[in-house]
Amino acid sequence: MYNSDIGLIGLGVMGENLALNMAGKGFSVAVYNRTRSKTDRFIQGRGAGKAIQGCPDMASFAGSLKKPRKALLMVQAGAGVDHTIEGLLSVFEAGDIIIDGGNSHYKDTIRRTAYVESKGLWYVGAGVSGGEEGALTGPSLMPGGSFQAWGAIKPLFQAIAAKAGGNTPCCAWIGENGAGHFVKMVHNGIEYGDMALICEAYAMLKHIAGLSYDKMAWVFEQWNKGPLNSYLIGITADILRFKDQDGQPLAEKILDTAGQKGTGTWAGMAALELGAPLTLTAEAVFSRCLSAAKAERVRCSKIFTGPKIEKPRNITAFTGDLEQALYAAKAVSYAQGYLLMREAAREYKWQLDYGGIALIWREGCIIRSVFLEKIKEAFDKNPDLENLLLAPFFTSAVEKAQGSWRRITAAAAVNGVPAPSFASALAYFDGCRSERLPANLLQAQRDCFGAHTYERLDKPRGDFFHTNWLGGGL
Amino acid sequence: MYNSDIGLIGLGVMGENLALNMAGKGFSVAVYNRTRSKTDRFIQGRGAGKAIQGCPDMASFAGSLKKPRKALLMVQAGAGVDHTIEGLLSVFEAGDIIIDGGNSHYKDTIRRTAYVESKGLWYVGAGVSGGEEGALTGPSLMPGGSFQAWGAIKPLFQAIAAKAGGNTPCCAWIGENGAGHFVKMVHNGIEYGDMALICEAYAMLKHIAGLSYDKMAWVFEQWNKGPLNSYLIGITADILRFKDQDGQPLAEKILDTAGQKGTGTWAGMAALELGAPLTLTAEAVFSRCLSAAKAERVRCSKIFTGPKIEKPRNITAFTGDLEQALYAAKAVSYAQGYLLMREAAREYKWQLDYGGIALIWREGCIIRSVFLEKIKEAFDKNPDLENLLLAPFFTSAVEKAQGSWRRITAAAAVNGVPAPSFASALAYFDGCRSERLPANLLQAQRDCFGAHTYERLDKPRGDFFHTNWLGGGL
Repeated sequence: MYNSDIGLIGLGVMGENLALNMAGKGFSVAVYNRTRSKTDRFIQGRGAGKAIQGCPDMASFAGSLKKPRKALLMVQAGAGVDHTIEGLLSVFEAGDIIIDGGNSHYKDTIRRTAYVESKGLWYVGAGVSGGEEGALTGPSLMPGGSFQAWGAIKPLFQAIAAKAGGNTPCCAWIGENGAGHFVKMVHNGIEYGDMALICEAYAMLKHIAGLSYDKMAWVFEQWNKGPLNSYLIGITADILRFKDQDGQPLAEKILDTAGQKGTGTWAGMAALELGAPLTLTAEAVFSRCLSAAKAERVRCSKIFTGPKIEKPRNITAFTGDLEQALYAAKAVSYAQGYLLMREAAREYKWQLDYGGIALIWREGCIIRSVFLEKIKEAFDKNPDLENLLLAPFFTSAVEKAQGSWRRITAAAAVNGVPAPSFASALAYFDGCRSERLPANLLQAQRDCFGAHTYERLDKPRGDFFHTNWLGGGL
Repeated sequence: MYNSDIGLIGLGVMGENLALNMAGKGFSVAVYNRTRSKTDRFIQGRGAGKAIQGCPDMASFAGSLKKPRKALLMVQAGAGVDHTIEGLLSVFEAGDIIIDGGNSHYKDTIRRTAYVESKGLWYVGAGVSGGEEGALTGPSLMPGGSFQAWGAIKPLFQAIAAKAGGNTPCCAWIGENGAGHFVKMVHNGIEYGDMALICEAYAMLKHIAGLSYDKMAWVFEQWNKGPLNSYLIGITADILRFKDQDGQPLAEKILDTAGQKGTGTWAGMAALELGAPLTLTAEAVFSRCLSAAKAERVRCSKIFTGPKIEKPRNITAFTGDLEQALYAAKAVSYAQGYLLMREAAREYKWQLDYGGIALIWREGCIIRSVFLEKIKEAFDKNPDLENLLLAPFFTSAVEKAQGSWRRITAAAAVNGVPAPSFASALAYFDGCRSERLPANLLQAQRDCFGAHTYERLDKPRGDFFHTNWLGGGL
């Protein structure tokens, strides 16, 4: 009794792997699953011979934990989390800690933090990234919620987390209530953008440059040796190289439909709600929606003829352009993600450590890359950096890439290969560097049809004007 | 007592104008405003000498209405609507009708319809479009909710609505509970897209073609005589032609920052939630966000140098391309809006009359155009049309425009003029006509890092496969 360091509820693969990770780092773990046979199977299987104790019910689970008790929930986001919290509240006591390690919506985490604190306990919403493998070997961890809980869980969290640059844990306290889950959501939105950019680059290598799978794999391998070095570029090379039993590239045989539920979608919705342009994530989500409409696309493809492909004369120059374009578009995507976090911090009064967040993502998670090292450095140099593109390193990288990026985006448009993320990133960049955008016309239109009034460039902000544009009026 | 045909609550400009419109069509109107002085001012002012009766409180308001009572709420969306409903429930009786004519969120309207019906009354959420002028002279009306109320309000609604093609009212029953407000929200999302496309076209005429305001006005005037003929193109010409007191174009002096709260944002969020690509609306919302970040843009503009503009050799050819591109991108935007309505109809079990909706938008509202006539015709020919781009008229229009559209999108990218809506529309079109998209790689990535499994082109749908892509595994 009262002998386990940490409790874990929910033995899906993520839950199992986190339990094994914690046990491997010297922590004793009590586990509980609603379906008891799952607990038994785990204890007798992958959990056998380790400091992992199975509990048949919530009461014995609570009884097996050292105080203050710490329970990590790895259950399906949604009502299941609320239900489990209720169960824990009936067996836990004041000062105990409930941690939600699932992909919960940050607004739910804000609500639950207040609720659990109102009962005298502490609540932590922790983003966990890195997939199944990361959970086992070291994930990125983004805990937020009741700061009073942080001291008690910090040793365990930092022990099981991935390590960057030798021995720095990819885990730090993010902020109040929903901050951890918000930052995890932004991570996933960025992941959507990264994956979309890679897919569009692959489509251009395949359809415009006309490269074989082995050649495409080679291109990604080269990119992985340079500034684009990252987990996703690395696995893309491996995937493109992978042969099916008949010796043909396996990727070519995979059905081209993807789902889009969950945190990527939430990131887009949060961006719309907070008024932060997150165009790459939104385009990536919508691309997945379109991919899912396979039957409709097949019908459309028989009706609409596209342009004839103009194969580039110099393939090396083309792949070089593509590498530059991918880097610049990626910089825009991260700049947008950071702007979204900044808007959220303003709205929810969080004090976010932007460089620290880059460090958390540096290893362990799906978007891990050397790129994040550069973001960390940018915020180290200027913690108040308002836009990542204004950090000298990224400014010069994007300046250098600009010509390539424009050629690639134009080539996609002219050749009929959809590259919405490249195009959206470039349009955003061009908007960013536009002292004047055509929104003056938009304001005039709104004033014309709705008397919404407008401000003038030659008058102070806050002075509003209305014009009877059509000479008539009511 | 009991002598007014209709009651109206909320005497903002929209409310006043609707009251005047109804009175002008021969209906007697009782009006009530929370601030009594507003009622008095209206009755003694614009409402004087008309069949409009001011009511000092809710009880006398209820007492002044013929049964079944009909109250049209023109109050601020949100808590004000709930508050007013509660007030009406305390003075109305079973069978009476409460109509919300504001820009309420469709989910609120779904909730309120059920609530008001549970009290034995009927509830209608009516989209009202056309701005202040439309409210006075004939708006587009999109009522939905309790169908039992439709018979009682139909004569009045159809009398005050705009008329298309001579005498067809731009008002028809949309569907159950939140259907009316949903369709209005989609209308506004499309309006965001239309305005963004026009603004981007203006930016290209100005910065790439280098045209003066008078020449730009002339271009829009020409477009307004052709297939792009529409209210927004018409007022754009007027706006660009409009001179300030010093003889200079007034539009050039307007501050280029726009807001983005409200229904356009909601449309983007609904699209993300329902999995329907609504890329033009989303890009338009995000463009407005970026326009609002004026100070940041000014700083960026001093750091990033854009490309040198390559002015087109043949300006007529360029404006011709732009007209074609605008038409094609607009077709995509409407196709996306219709797909969103289709997804919502599936989700909420509405029976939407898509051609009828085009007819409602044909006159009275901000997006009114001859274009909508073509949409109406397309659905008349094929009520089950799954995608507007597959209607023969739009198929050939887009086919014809394709080359121009690609040239314009490429020119924007190469010349550094942001045209996110043109680019996003083209990428969506190219995605639509792609039998295969690069989502096969995305599915392989997800299977690689998360064991999400994938389907194969050479196996039946529903057969899922997993590959150990990196040769290792847990």
